[in-house]
Amino acid sequence: MSKLYLVGTGPGSSDYLTKAAIDAVESVDVLVGSQRALDLFPGFVGDTLVLRARNMDEMMKKSISLVDEGKDVAILSTGDPGFSGVLKPILNLRDDLDIEVIPGISSLQLAAARLQLPWDQANLLTLHGKGNSQVILDYLDNGKPTIVLPDFRVEKLAQFLLENGIHLERKVAVCERLSYPDERLFKGTLKEIAGKEFSYLCVMVIY
Amino acid sequence: MSKLYLVGTGPGSSDYLTKAAIDAVESVDVLVGSQRALDLFPGFVGDTLVLRARNMDEMMKKSISLVDEGKDVAILSTGDPGFSGVLKPILNLRDDLDIEVIPGISSLQLAAARLQLPWDQANLLTLHGKGNSQVILDYLDNGKPTIVLPDFRVEKLAQFLLENGIHLERKVAVCERLSYPDERLFKGTLKEIAGKEFSYLCVMVIY
Ligand SMILES: C[S@@+](CC[C@H](N)C(=O)[O-])C[C@H]1O[C@@H](n2cnc3c(N)ncnc32)[C@H](O)[C@@H]1O
Ligand SMILES: C[S@@+](CC[C@H](N)C(=O)[O-])C[C@H]1O[C@@H](n2cnc3c(N)ncnc32)[C@H](O)[C@@H]1O
Repeated sequence: MSKLYLVGTGPGSSDYLTKAAIDAVESVDVLVGSQRALDLFPGFVGDTLVLRARNMDEMMKKSISLVDEGKDVAILSTGDPGFSGVLKPILNLRDDLDIEVIPGISSLQLAAARLQLPWDQANLLTLHGKGNSQVILDYLDNGKPTIVLPDFRVEKLAQFLLENGIHLERKVAVCERLSYPDERLFKGTLKEIAGKEFSYLCVMVIY
Repeated sequence: MSKLYLVGTGPGSSDYLTKAAIDAVESVDVLVGSQRALDLFPGFVGDTLVLRARNMDEMMKKSISLVDEGKDVAILSTGDPGFSGVLKPILNLRDDLDIEVIPGISSLQLAAARLQLPWDQANLLTLHGKGNSQVILDYLDNGKPTIVLPDFRVEKLAQFLLENGIHLERKVAVCERLSYPDERLFKGTLKEIAGKEFSYLCVMVIY
């Protein structure tokens, strides 16, 4: 029976690929992923399909029909497919396929590593696809640091937090473009972040 | 300046090692880890120190003094060093060292992958070093599945949950010896688990 692999590729650079991910990719007929994920497998010889923000739904359906046609397919998910990744949308489309999930290093883990923050004592949160950021307010007073994947630019999230009564001087950190050559870490206050510009790829920590 | 690496090695088999972990290990003078973690690096040529449950504290202090003496040292942590791993105890001993944390695939991530459970919507919990399991009771009624690393045998944790009013028929899963050739998954009810025997290496999920 043909199989759908959901393969975690880590935060970005090939340093965080696992052998399990490489082996799964080498075994399939079709590889599906964002351009930055596909670029991790320059030697792949089968067919490739490029995921873009706009064609996500279409490409997932296409991947599923390729599996139905008898092909082995791998969908690449940056980070871990189970944390704000492709696992949930795929299960929502079809839960009767032969699926194998290969975990990957999530961007939240590399953020925690860079900040030397034990994440078993942190709130972990993704705002992707949530529509609004309201939910984060429930977490910011429970005494634990919050590691969050914002759904839009991090300076906007900082502004939202300020508008909702979080203190100007609240300690925060932003981990930008983790694992890439231009990775940057910023540690400071909420107020400072609200006035800066960051790339789209950021993990934010609110202490 | 010499450096202390805290290196995540994943849940067990070498399939989940990253290149970042391998490179860090190859760069150091001294490698410290449990026997099962050291076995992942059979080609390592420097000195090795074996971590055991009994000598953890002594070996961490020894690692730190080796760094003070000018050696580069890597301490291997199964899974991710930041989730119930060596990061917290090391920071408690010394927070002024040059430390680099290399994240690894946590056993909780492989458990979530095997069970096809999106873990951005789960409670994540370790009972290691907590002394008792009371804290888990706070999580079991918030509508989210709970992924837990028990501090002792999983059947004892199941018995504790039954004694504390969790329903006999509550759906649970146990992921035993993840990534090893004798890995096993059990899905059933709390009552069934309380009556079985599992290995020491288990992740439990309470749905
Ligand atoms: C749709 S989510 C995917 C998360 C992914 N499954 C994971 O486990 O990291 C995309 C978000 O992840 C975060 N992200 C992914 N890669 C990143 C990187 N290299 N540096 C910083 N943040 C990153 C950003 O918050 C981005 O908006
Ligand atoms: C001290 S904690 C270390 C956790 C590790 N830092 C991680 O991220 O997985 C040890 C616990 O992790 C879990 N564990 C580690 N490796 C495992 C494996 N291969 N299979 C199942 N559980 C495992 C068990 O619950 C074990 O008691």
